[in-house]
Amino acid sequence: MDGGMDGGMDGAGSGGPGAPGALGPAPGASVTAAAAGGGRETEAPAIDAKPGSAWLGRRLEELPTPALAVSEATARRNAERMLERCRALGVRLRPHVKTHKTLEGAALATGGTRRGIAVSTLAEARFFAAGGFDDILYAYPLPAARLEECAALAQRLEAFQVLLDSPQGLALLRRRPLAPGKRWLVWLKLDCGNGRAGVRPTDPGALELARAIAEEAPAEVALVGVYAHCGDTYHCGSVPEVQAIARATTTAMLDFVATLRQAGVPCAQASVGSTPSCSHPVPEMAALTELHPGNYLFYDLQQTLLGSCRLEDVALRVLTRVVGHYRHRNQLLVDCGWAALSLHGQGRPPAAFAAVEGHPELRLVGLTQEHGQLEPAAGPLDFGRFPVGSVLALVPFHACATAAMHPVYYVHAQGTVVALWHPARGW
Amino acid sequence: MDGGMDGGMDGAGSGGPGAPGALGPAPGASVTAAAAGGGRETEAPAIDAKPGSAWLGRRLEELPTPALAVSEATARRNAERMLERCRALGVRLRPHVKTHKTLEGAALATGGTRRGIAVSTLAEARFFAAGGFDDILYAYPLPAARLEECAALAQRLEAFQVLLDSPQGLALLRRRPLAPGKRWLVWLKLDCGNGRAGVRPTDPGALELARAIAEEAPAEVALVGVYAHCGDTYHCGSVPEVQAIARATTTAMLDFVATLRQAGVPCAQASVGSTPSCSHPVPEMAALTELHPGNYLFYDLQQTLLGSCRLEDVALRVLTRVVGHYRHRNQLLVDCGWAALSLHGQGRPPAAFAAVEGHPELRLVGLTQEHGQLEPAAGPLDFGRFPVGSVLALVPFHACATAAMHPVYYVHAQGTVVALWHPARGW
Repeated sequence: MDGGMDGGMDGAGSGGPGAPGALGPAPGASVTAAAAGGGRETEAPAIDAKPGSAWLGRRLEELPTPALAVSEATARRNAERMLERCRALGVRLRPHVKTHKTLEGAALATGGTRRGIAVSTLAEARFFAAGGFDDILYAYPLPAARLEECAALAQRLEAFQVLLDSPQGLALLRRRPLAPGKRWLVWLKLDCGNGRAGVRPTDPGALELARAIAEEAPAEVALVGVYAHCGDTYHCGSVPEVQAIARATTTAMLDFVATLRQAGVPCAQASVGSTPSCSHPVPEMAALTELHPGNYLFYDLQQTLLGSCRLEDVALRVLTRVVGHYRHRNQLLVDCGWAALSLHGQGRPPAAFAAVEGHPELRLVGLTQEHGQLEPAAGPLDFGRFPVGSVLALVPFHACATAAMHPVYYVHAQGTVVALWHPARGW
Repeated sequence: MDGGMDGGMDGAGSGGPGAPGALGPAPGASVTAAAAGGGRETEAPAIDAKPGSAWLGRRLEELPTPALAVSEATARRNAERMLERCRALGVRLRPHVKTHKTLEGAALATGGTRRGIAVSTLAEARFFAAGGFDDILYAYPLPAARLEECAALAQRLEAFQVLLDSPQGLALLRRRPLAPGKRWLVWLKLDCGNGRAGVRPTDPGALELARAIAEEAPAEVALVGVYAHCGDTYHCGSVPEVQAIARATTTAMLDFVATLRQAGVPCAQASVGSTPSCSHPVPEMAALTELHPGNYLFYDLQQTLLGSCRLEDVALRVLTRVVGHYRHRNQLLVDCGWAALSLHGQGRPPAAFAAVEGHPELRLVGLTQEHGQLEPAAGPLDFGRFPVGSVLALVPFHACATAAMHPVYYVHAQGTVVALWHPARGW
């Protein structure tokens, strides 16, 4: 059904009698009236307050919108390709799960082993531990206030691992030894140019800290490896630029490991991550022991712009419906605002927040909490192609941010809902 | 505790024997070791996977971070002031609940009546209906695909009200009459300059649509009132600018109501909203019947910049802990990223994302998923004032966006947690 705000009215009645004074009494909260006898339409299926199993087997077009849809086949293919890429390099894949935060996504990403993941919060760590995962690296500077929670996970799992980048972090662990038979398994976070957390490998303190972790109390604390995130790849304009950063990060890390070895400090593992770098790994990365990308399971518009993937590799969409035609503004209104998409991506017009699948001529030009505004890049909008109620699929700029807005992901196979994934939330 | 990444190391051990080959076997997933005999620290209290009642009675500084803290006294004062402002104007307050989405917040905002709210999603509508609220206006263009859900709410509540801005919306309601004794209670959405949803009151179709709602099937459908959001106030640079928009919106709406009256179309209610306009109402607004602001219960940094409130009126904070000192960058790292704050506010440096309470010299210069980077606006950072582990309170730029990131709000009285509010989520 087309027809807009300014479309013709059919059969508006004549002015009735009894118009009240300005804003005088009229139908309101307590008003009731005899119902008309008009026939009921066929009832829609019962709908849960929380979208649930009622949607299994339904078509995506039937879902309430906005909704996060994930292509199972695409996510599986992304998972398999990254696993294969790591096999070819001879390194292990430790998928970071912060993008999706789901048991099902992490099962795909680990090739079904449910062993060897990185998490960004303790809520994730507990969620995945409860879901049967182990070898979980809490890839975040060890927080003093959460030490007991870390200890509980370390006692419970075979290999709950922590990360630190300061002598204070080590001192924390020393104050809270684990029960007999357990040591703190520690990764040293390196900052190889990313400029966020981590000790710089060229800092004299880095070697001293690695040595202290490895040797200060070997019955209590073990140095497992070194870990770096090359998030600086997100500022690149091309794959060669990404690869230059990946190479620099890898080289800096391996140089540091060699320095450690020369100093007699054992460091068995070296792990580098970021989806841009791991999507086009450089040969030098074969000398690492692990890669830990995360976003690649879904990919997103940003990754297509970085060259990490093609548009057909992006597994997630936000489904939205047209809720209004505004011909005087040459705009459609859709029921996806920042509450369903996030505000990530602003800085990169024209692909500001999302691409509209199948409609490269459309631009998302406005986003408030529950409203999105679409208009053509040029020329008049063909409203007839976008009836009110029709479903559009948005390719989000940043999958991590968009996924974080949704309490459920609708996973589909060729447009039929085959699973519901419920992510971990909170901290 | 102070001391940074580059702080001195105390007593790093000498290089041990048996260093492995490059990344050779070393402590890893399957490693176990005899525990040292170091004494345990006092145990922290048991912590639920989901923050819950265990935190009642605790101090804010004890909470796991990041955490959303709400001052009950400030929120209550904001609620009372807005109620008083509306009483003084002689209009009703219909608080919009989309900012907080909590039963407790809406109870405060309605002065305890639990009657007369606006919601932005059907998930909110159901949540508040289940929580004992009534007279709920679903202030969103009526979505065809959700008609049955609206009908269920209309049957269940005394006054579930819908909003529309097109003949198609009315046609929808006509196809699905309610049970005997119930009419669809309809508000006509006007666009008085905001440029999002709504029919322009000067559009000939507006009068025709109002008449159709009022008269086409009076036993099935009733025109309750007209509704406008003056979201354009968010682009203002001063209170007089905000008031000029509030005046223009109000005048446009009242002119339209007068036109309706002259045409014999009863329209009992006229409702205008937006926190900037309702925080400094103009006298013309006394001729309306309702105001429907929402953000004011919490307020935020953006509202202080708009002149809607003072900093001491902002009821919410994101509590975060310092997780690292990075002296070579003159930066602190904190455990609040966009996952806890949102990315709203980017466009307004230097108050880019949030203000650091009590530390106007600090700037939040970086935000990734779980990390925030703080540095002074000028000069060297006094790291001694911000020990690792110390708690900072961030005043968010946009309360609606920040609240949307949190599964629980910690409500406090003078720094002691007195309640936990759990918001509605999803659609």
